[in-house]
Amino acid sequence: MTDAVRAFVPGHVTGFFSIHRDAAAARAGSRGAGVTLTDGVEVAVEPAESTSVTLNGETVDVPAVTDVLSALSATASVEAETPLPLGAGFGVSGAMALGTALAANATFDRARSENELVRLAHAAEVRAGTGLGDVVAQARGGVPVREEPGAPPYGSMDGVPAMADVEYVSFGELSTSDVLSGETDVLSAAGERALSALREEPTLDAFVRESKRFAADAGLLTDDVREAIEAAEDAGGRASMAMLGRTVFAFDGALSTAGYDPAVCRIHPAGATLR
Amino acid sequence: MTDAVRAFVPGHVTGFFSIHRDAAAARAGSRGAGVTLTDGVEVAVEPAESTSVTLNGETVDVPAVTDVLSALSATASVEAETPLPLGAGFGVSGAMALGTALAANATFDRARSENELVRLAHAAEVRAGTGLGDVVAQARGGVPVREEPGAPPYGSMDGVPAMADVEYVSFGELSTSDVLSGETDVLSAAGERALSALREEPTLDAFVRESKRFAADAGLLTDDVREAIEAAEDAGGRASMAMLGRTVFAFDGALSTAGYDPAVCRIHPAGATLR
Repeated sequence: MTDAVRAFVPGHVTGFFSIHRDAAAARAGSRGAGVTLTDGVEVAVEPAESTSVTLNGETVDVPAVTDVLSALSATASVEAETPLPLGAGFGVSGAMALGTALAANATFDRARSENELVRLAHAAEVRAGTGLGDVVAQARGGVPVREEPGAPPYGSMDGVPAMADVEYVSFGELSTSDVLSGETDVLSAAGERALSALREEPTLDAFVRESKRFAADAGLLTDDVREAIEAAEDAGGRASMAMLGRTVFAFDGALSTAGYDPAVCRIHPAGATLR
Repeated sequence: MTDAVRAFVPGHVTGFFSIHRDAAAARAGSRGAGVTLTDGVEVAVEPAESTSVTLNGETVDVPAVTDVLSALSATASVEAETPLPLGAGFGVSGAMALGTALAANATFDRARSENELVRLAHAAEVRAGTGLGDVVAQARGGVPVREEPGAPPYGSMDGVPAMADVEYVSFGELSTSDVLSGETDVLSAAGERALSALREEPTLDAFVRESKRFAADAGLLTDDVREAIEAAEDAGGRASMAMLGRTVFAFDGALSTAGYDPAVCRIHPAGATLR
């Protein structure tokens, strides 16, 4: 795909969140906070006779991507590449939707603004049931705080000003749709408490502390995740769980120090962008 | 300053704008659009016995920077380095204010959020009379569109999704405060027209076209600037004038092709960030 238009979208791990449903997909979403990662998704889009979507060379069915293409009246080949684990809380589907929106807009001269493209991709993710807050976070970069749910112009964002190395290990998938379709009142209440605390003290320390409290309060910690977080803390570092995956993220090299073999990247300074 | 905390803030050239005054500096500002540049300002902040500010090694008086430090109750040495020309429409003072806010917040553990720091720096620039829209644009990155004036939570932003090389030549200064203190009704009306047109068609082509129309309608084109824009267009490229400086920016290598010796950089994909 040498003539393809390319976009890069950072990975995103959510530390805590609350769920906000709305009949309008662009207004639905989550409040919460997370970290965007220099490990992300490269998306290449080229016009084609029929739409096809691949991820790391394999054909995949990502409803949010085909929904975005439909909204842009585009028939295209979409090729995505990522080093991130799938289904493990890194926002890969949101990244594919947002990257497709940016690259297809350029490929097909659709003249949409950034906010419009973010709104398209966010609404597609919400409708697909694969995410509630990754797209708006990935559009911003850094350490995004989702103060109000939804895409522009409905949602509103802030950020924790911080830059750090990030380590992560993943022990497997956790189904976003299983968690979101279950009883979520306790989870959302814990998410709102965490957000209030982070807004009082918008630092990386507070983000990790509130994320860990949320994971415990929401009953989402699995044994392997709890063990890795505790090992990272014993090693003098800060760690919590990625929502929603059996994944631990840490700062300060704490997972390495604790004897794990984590992937290593960094907080990504930018939001999604064309290459 | 080996232990200094460092921030990078992209340069920013405004293509067109309208002026919006308000008694509250955080609500005042401009509507308009511009381009952020990979050529920017590195700011290093370290605690010190008394406040000092240097730019490229020379002591300078930048009221917006000292205002930001006061707001954060910080006494510091601020060292800024930039390849950008000064007073020529690249937002160097805004970049220094914003970079100081980010780096001083980290240095002195002030636990402000990104939006709070942007608001501080924007208000300081407005009070100093040195800029109306650079700070919020530099906080966003890319090709920022200022839809509503002011800092978060008052202003609102969108972006033109585009990535391109940028060339620029500068023939000298144009006083921001002279222009802003003069008769600005015609300028603001031209800026509002340009913004409406860009929102209808948020592309780089429309941005350059509306910028050039604005520069002419607002009566700001100088002979050297007009000549360089026309030469770039004759070379098959797109060019306009940076507000407010005797500066021409161009895409597609058009200034080089036209025989000028421009600086070359690229649209910056990110907003201001800690290093």
